[in-house]
Amino acid sequence: MTAPIWQKQSQASVDNEIMNYMAGEDILLDNQIFLFDIQASKAHVKGLNSITILDKGEADSLIQALDELAHDYNQGVFHLSNQFEDGHSAIEYYLVEKLGDLGKKIHTGRSRNDQVSVATRLLIKHSLKQAEDYIVSAVRACLAQAKLTKDIPMPGYTHLQRAVPSSAGMWFAGFAEAMIDNLMSLQFSLQLLDANPLGTAAGYGVNLPLDRELTTNELDFSRLQINPIYTQNSRGKFELEALFRLSQCLLDIRRFCWDLSLFTSQEFNFVNLPDNMTTGSSIMPNKRNPDLIELMRGSYATLQGAMVELQSILSLPSGYQRDLQLTKPPLLKGLKVALDTIKLFSKVVSEMSFKADVLEKAIDAPMYATDLATEQSIKGIPFREAYQSANDLKKNLADRLPMDSLTQRTSPGACANLLLDELESRFNQLL
Amino acid sequence: MTAPIWQKQSQASVDNEIMNYMAGEDILLDNQIFLFDIQASKAHVKGLNSITILDKGEADSLIQALDELAHDYNQGVFHLSNQFEDGHSAIEYYLVEKLGDLGKKIHTGRSRNDQVSVATRLLIKHSLKQAEDYIVSAVRACLAQAKLTKDIPMPGYTHLQRAVPSSAGMWFAGFAEAMIDNLMSLQFSLQLLDANPLGTAAGYGVNLPLDRELTTNELDFSRLQINPIYTQNSRGKFELEALFRLSQCLLDIRRFCWDLSLFTSQEFNFVNLPDNMTTGSSIMPNKRNPDLIELMRGSYATLQGAMVELQSILSLPSGYQRDLQLTKPPLLKGLKVALDTIKLFSKVVSEMSFKADVLEKAIDAPMYATDLATEQSIKGIPFREAYQSANDLKKNLADRLPMDSLTQRTSPGACANLLLDELESRFNQLL
Amino acid sequence: MTAPIWQKQSQASVDNEIMNYMAGEDILLDNQIFLFDIQASKAHVKGLNSITILDKGEADSLIQALDELAHDYNQGVFHLSNQFEDGHSAIEYYLVEKLGDLGKKIHTGRSRNDQVSVATRLLIKHSLKQAEDYIVSAVRACLAQAKLTKDIPMPGYTHLQRAVPSSAGMWFAGFAEAMIDNLMSLQFSLQLLDANPLGTAAGYGVNLPLDRELTTNELDFSRLQINPIYTQNSRGKFELEALFRLSQCLLDIRRFCWDLSLFTSQEFNFVNLPDNMTTGSSIMPNKRNPDLIELMRGSYATLQGAMVELQSILSLPSGYQRDLQLTKPPLLKGLKVALDTIKLFSKVVSEMSFKADVLEKAIDAPMYATDLATEQSIKGIPFREAYQSANDLKKNLADRLPMDSLTQRTSPGACANLLLDELESRFNQLL
Amino acid sequence: MTAPIWQKQSQASVDNEIMNYMAGEDILLDNQIFLFDIQASKAHVKGLNSITILDKGEADSLIQALDELAHDYNQGVFHLSNQFEDGHSAIEYYLVEKLGDLGKKIHTGRSRNDQVSVATRLLIKHSLKQAEDYIVSAVRACLAQAKLTKDIPMPGYTHLQRAVPSSAGMWFAGFAEAMIDNLMSLQFSLQLLDANPLGTAAGYGVNLPLDRELTTNELDFSRLQINPIYTQNSRGKFELEALFRLSQCLLDIRRFCWDLSLFTSQEFNFVNLPDNMTTGSSIMPNKRNPDLIELMRGSYATLQGAMVELQSILSLPSGYQRDLQLTKPPLLKGLKVALDTIKLFSKVVSEMSFKADVLEKAIDAPMYATDLATEQSIKGIPFREAYQSANDLKKNLADRLPMDSLTQRTSPGACANLLLDELESRFNQLL
Repeated sequence: MTAPIWQKQSQASVDNEIMNYMAGEDILLDNQIFLFDIQASKAHVKGLNSITILDKGEADSLIQALDELAHDYNQGVFHLSNQFEDGHSAIEYYLVEKLGDLGKKIHTGRSRNDQVSVATRLLIKHSLKQAEDYIVSAVRACLAQAKLTKDIPMPGYTHLQRAVPSSAGMWFAGFAEAMIDNLMSLQFSLQLLDANPLGTAAGYGVNLPLDRELTTNELDFSRLQINPIYTQNSRGKFELEALFRLSQCLLDIRRFCWDLSLFTSQEFNFVNLPDNMTTGSSIMPNKRNPDLIELMRGSYATLQGAMVELQSILSLPSGYQRDLQLTKPPLLKGLKVALDTIKLFSKVVSEMSFKADVLEKAIDAPMYATDLATEQSIKGIPFREAYQSANDLKKNLADRLPMDSLTQRTSPGACANLLLDELESRFNQLL
Repeated sequence: MTAPIWQKQSQASVDNEIMNYMAGEDILLDNQIFLFDIQASKAHVKGLNSITILDKGEADSLIQALDELAHDYNQGVFHLSNQFEDGHSAIEYYLVEKLGDLGKKIHTGRSRNDQVSVATRLLIKHSLKQAEDYIVSAVRACLAQAKLTKDIPMPGYTHLQRAVPSSAGMWFAGFAEAMIDNLMSLQFSLQLLDANPLGTAAGYGVNLPLDRELTTNELDFSRLQINPIYTQNSRGKFELEALFRLSQCLLDIRRFCWDLSLFTSQEFNFVNLPDNMTTGSSIMPNKRNPDLIELMRGSYATLQGAMVELQSILSLPSGYQRDLQLTKPPLLKGLKVALDTIKLFSKVVSEMSFKADVLEKAIDAPMYATDLATEQSIKGIPFREAYQSANDLKKNLADRLPMDSLTQRTSPGACANLLLDELESRFNQLL
Repeated sequence: MTAPIWQKQSQASVDNEIMNYMAGEDILLDNQIFLFDIQASKAHVKGLNSITILDKGEADSLIQALDELAHDYNQGVFHLSNQFEDGHSAIEYYLVEKLGDLGKKIHTGRSRNDQVSVATRLLIKHSLKQAEDYIVSAVRACLAQAKLTKDIPMPGYTHLQRAVPSSAGMWFAGFAEAMIDNLMSLQFSLQLLDANPLGTAAGYGVNLPLDRELTTNELDFSRLQINPIYTQNSRGKFELEALFRLSQCLLDIRRFCWDLSLFTSQEFNFVNLPDNMTTGSSIMPNKRNPDLIELMRGSYATLQGAMVELQSILSLPSGYQRDLQLTKPPLLKGLKVALDTIKLFSKVVSEMSFKADVLEKAIDAPMYATDLATEQSIKGIPFREAYQSANDLKKNLADRLPMDSLTQRTSPGACANLLLDELESRFNQLL
Repeated sequence: MTAPIWQKQSQASVDNEIMNYMAGEDILLDNQIFLFDIQASKAHVKGLNSITILDKGEADSLIQALDELAHDYNQGVFHLSNQFEDGHSAIEYYLVEKLGDLGKKIHTGRSRNDQVSVATRLLIKHSLKQAEDYIVSAVRACLAQAKLTKDIPMPGYTHLQRAVPSSAGMWFAGFAEAMIDNLMSLQFSLQLLDANPLGTAAGYGVNLPLDRELTTNELDFSRLQINPIYTQNSRGKFELEALFRLSQCLLDIRRFCWDLSLFTSQEFNFVNLPDNMTTGSSIMPNKRNPDLIELMRGSYATLQGAMVELQSILSLPSGYQRDLQLTKPPLLKGLKVALDTIKLFSKVVSEMSFKADVLEKAIDAPMYATDLATEQSIKGIPFREAYQSANDLKKNLADRLPMDSLTQRTSPGACANLLLDELESRFNQLL
């Protein structure tokens, strides 16, 4: 390993077992923020040039070298491996190798603390924007299916007991609205997170008039994260914001997957999943299993665990403490699982299909009892009395048809009045 | 107990032990949403009148009776106690007592599912607005203290090791910015939550053209929560949004309290708390303890636990299931703890005081080493070399003064450039 | 309110809002440990007598007064209400009222820290012993049902897909074994928790040779918790042990309830629950809902939340800190929910019944494919080949009967060989 | 990739994106259980031979091939990489490559469900035994330090306020007792987990009289996990048991690290850490930071997150569901972090040293007030009165010495009576 950048010549080197413990998977994880770290380093160089710490020529050389590093890294020529203490040191190491003394100037006015904060912030923004795309697709898929299936009756359940008639379209429209809400809140969270931490050094700023406005524009942040102490204290807090926001999508997806898990059982038998979404058993030749759905359902737990991990790490006094390194694994794990799951959600929505005949058959006479009681109450019989007598009138229910509900259940949002236009209009305002 | 509203005459009553288990603390908790339930019931009545299910006279009578119920409840004349299955039933019971058959009409077109959703939603909105007020006060208190103390030097720590000079003003300004961010995000969350669930019945709407636009206006919601299935599925999801949002404030407050816990120790001795914020020991006559600070610190754990509880309950298929009743205790507990803590935060900020002399003495010579290295790098010595040699130059540090840092650490946000105006301007835009 | 016991005459009283915040629900919760606190106080008095801090007459008077307090409390004559700072102070207050100066001697050599520890420990032990009884009943109920239903074929599911034939008896036997494991581990946890914290004062002992052996015997602990610092540090740790142990039971019960939630749906229709375990709907006259099962399922989330709350509170340096007061609510909530749920579990097991005819019909021909493949492999056809060809042989499956599996699936533990005797023998060793 | 073992020739292959999602890091993680999987496969072969499904020659060939696989794997000749669906399939693939048709017989009577259960169980047992060794070392280290430092006075804190005199030895003895408790409970958990799941197939057993007694002995389990449904349902439950058990150690270590984090600050300055346990800063030349201590402190959060992840995955009906694959990452992550941390704990305990002079100076006069009040109460003055007057007597405190407390605080467990012999005797009984 190259010597840590803080290692002074006179000092004893750190014990190997301890060094490994402290490194953890850090260098591996840094691969996921390395390009963002390079990007922010370029902005930092421009900022140093702006306040004449670096002259134009120095800045250009550093920027060129940083571009080369990005290129080498992308080409697999430069590897971010255990030979470096972390990705931040690797950048400095590379610049010193390339540019000698000039490379040693890159760290003027910054610390690994703001370096990791800005790289992570850029990654989070990037990830949430990807999520935004996936959610947009999800809304589209749900709305398309809602339109297609609005005339397919389907039992509505409470307590997993057949309750009242509903429709496949209403079920899809529900997930459409959920995803529209998720889109709106994701955009809120993006606004909140859009603050530039670069230039706060180790949490207390520096004795240089850093041009933070320049780096803020350069990195396309909408505002400065002003206070260095808050910047440090927001480490983990902003990570939580991102994971929570994505977890709310997964919360909806978990319920969706629960539904599909039931709907694909032989007992319900409501849904066809395409073959490429199911797998077989190692011992039971007769099986096709909805593994994908189950893993998507389980993914919420990963986010939940990641959030708890972050929350518990953050019981700390102000200022950087090494515990904060441990915020990286749950963040990165959580982002990946969430993005992958949200992406696949659209695919499942688009490719699944309901078995209309089975759904219809599952709507049995007692499910009209509520409608009957309501009809009675329209005629002036107090609802509670109509309710009490509904069972006596069961004979009236036998000749009702599932399709009737699709025209009669007219309360706004219900299957006879899905308000898909309103959903689309909300959606369009968010695009 | 009055018979449950769903109890039909022929049916066996439910086992007592089971009934108690199912009731839990529900009726007790319903006290916290009862007035909102009445408010929403009035809107429901107006909506039924609008679609002529109730005539004007009936609606007026029901609304008057509901107002009387609210009055009786507030006066302690009407008690919401175990004699009712829940608060929702209690309203119907009261109306039937007062108005006979007319009372039995109140439940037309609604279910306890949308009834509890709308009452809870109103409570959440109300609570978040209270929180908004408290956060506004917190920002004011932090900004005021930041201005007052911007010239008080204070050691800045990383790893709880003395690192570089900072200032008391910078510490307060950090919490000001945190609270401004919290205010902005709270307003986002309020926007998200501002959707009316009333009129979705048991999760599938009803066979009546309910006037949901009217109830939306009546209850001062900014939009309709359209889809009944989504409305059910958002139970718990919106509760999580509210608790998460408040928990982010408590996360900042936890770090604040950690700081104070250290700062009030004899070893740091940085801070005076007013006597009315400390307590004594039952066995040790010499003690004054910062219990308040410690309880405020611990309150985050309550929110964290409440969120995990909600998250785990919500692993369910679509549609109402009784597990959802269990969302109430963590929501109510979490809201209370969060509001109380955020409210007290301003008080502590305003009434605490730093001991300027102790702070100053705690800034020792090695803490200037970073500034020295940076100065060298301004003169053209590469930072990493300046860093390596900084310890050799320690003799240069001895005559520095803490006050120097307050003028020299000029990077935007640092103690010589706190940008309080910028913080105030952001704050004012949110008011 | 009576003045806090630590209040000295000269001191300003604490702000009311702050006092309420600090008190929280503490006094309410102390009702649940008050009798244990009295019991431990009696032991403490005997201990003080043993080292001659109190003479025989003093000790007798104090013990008599403590017995009267317990009596008055049980009779509702003495109320533990907000007039006291906490239950611990209330005891001292009562004794001073009754006995004057003698009452002021009770707190010699102890602190509220060991007082609350010992009372809580006694409560935990008591609760776990109750849980032990309930688990014993649960094992009995499961074993009885397993015997009764061992000849009822039932589909076995993986991925909620019909997989292979199983039996109702095998399902019950599975929960029997789970509960036997739970019983064994509960007994382990009881052993761990069986340590006496009384006599450690505020976490550092006192300058008196307290007779801790006497109080250990008196309170029926099996060993001393020796070290005062560890005693403080184990606050929360032992609470976690208790809640975790009970949560493992609830984990099994959650799966049981999930099964019943499916089995009581119209689609599965496998199970009858007695009427007194189901409830109706406020709007849908046709419904009978398994609310009890759903609440029991959800109860795990309460324990999970309580554990997270405890775990997060406990991120603290050594020694008592007021955050620890917050360990009480999750402990007490968790214990109650867990005990109630485990108790009801036996009841549900005993009173539910399977619909044998429906179960049998649900076993369809493809479910024998695995058995067929295995039969082929007995004849020497490599399993993987038999597996590959099993579907071709589907014609061979049509005339198989569910009952066949009950005699053919002979691997130890499977439906033809449940090993109920072995389970009973393990169970008996734990009684 | 090799075709999945359940792939039939006629079937469409699964979509690549979906396949990657489903695979996750599974194959990578399987490296950690692969050798245990091979070991269990050998036992399974012996079991099949015992019931004559395999003849002696077949069994010998399979076992030899399995040994070669283990050898090839250990030598890096055989790689467990993405070309296989999972480690279980890889074993079958290898055997078929080596032995042709005979290899296809290995899966007779087993499923990947019991295969992964038994391999995981073996890993867990192995890990807990490692942990046992580390805890034994930890107890030794703590006891050794307690003996060495029992005469070093040290302030005792409550609320981070100086409270009463304590000693370094008492602090170490506290962690010794904690670790002895942890050792006892680890041994309990090992007993609980020591049950053999092999032979339960996909959760319902098979139509073969598998010799499960033989495999139980062969794999050195102390008992059979009898019921196949319970075996499936215990997946995750036993993982939780292991992680919880280790987390209780980390809970103690977290408090230990909190103490050190404070004790190494300049304000406390109580402790020296060896240089190889601290690191430098990238920007501040003056710093030596206790990073190791902070990472050890943070490790609890990793375990907490892992447990929550497991707990939330497990909200499922009986029987295998693919969500359970997600139990692997938190288990493996949690085990690794816990083992590494517990191992390092002994090292830190052994190599840290207290600064006796600083500790002594930190004990100031008011800290004797409690002892003084107690002395008064020995003379018959009621404790509460002595307490009230203690502050008036402060003049009496000035000439007390820290060393006095070491002889006077004689309550069992306190610094004058640490009962190290009793701790050692408890420890020896567990060896």
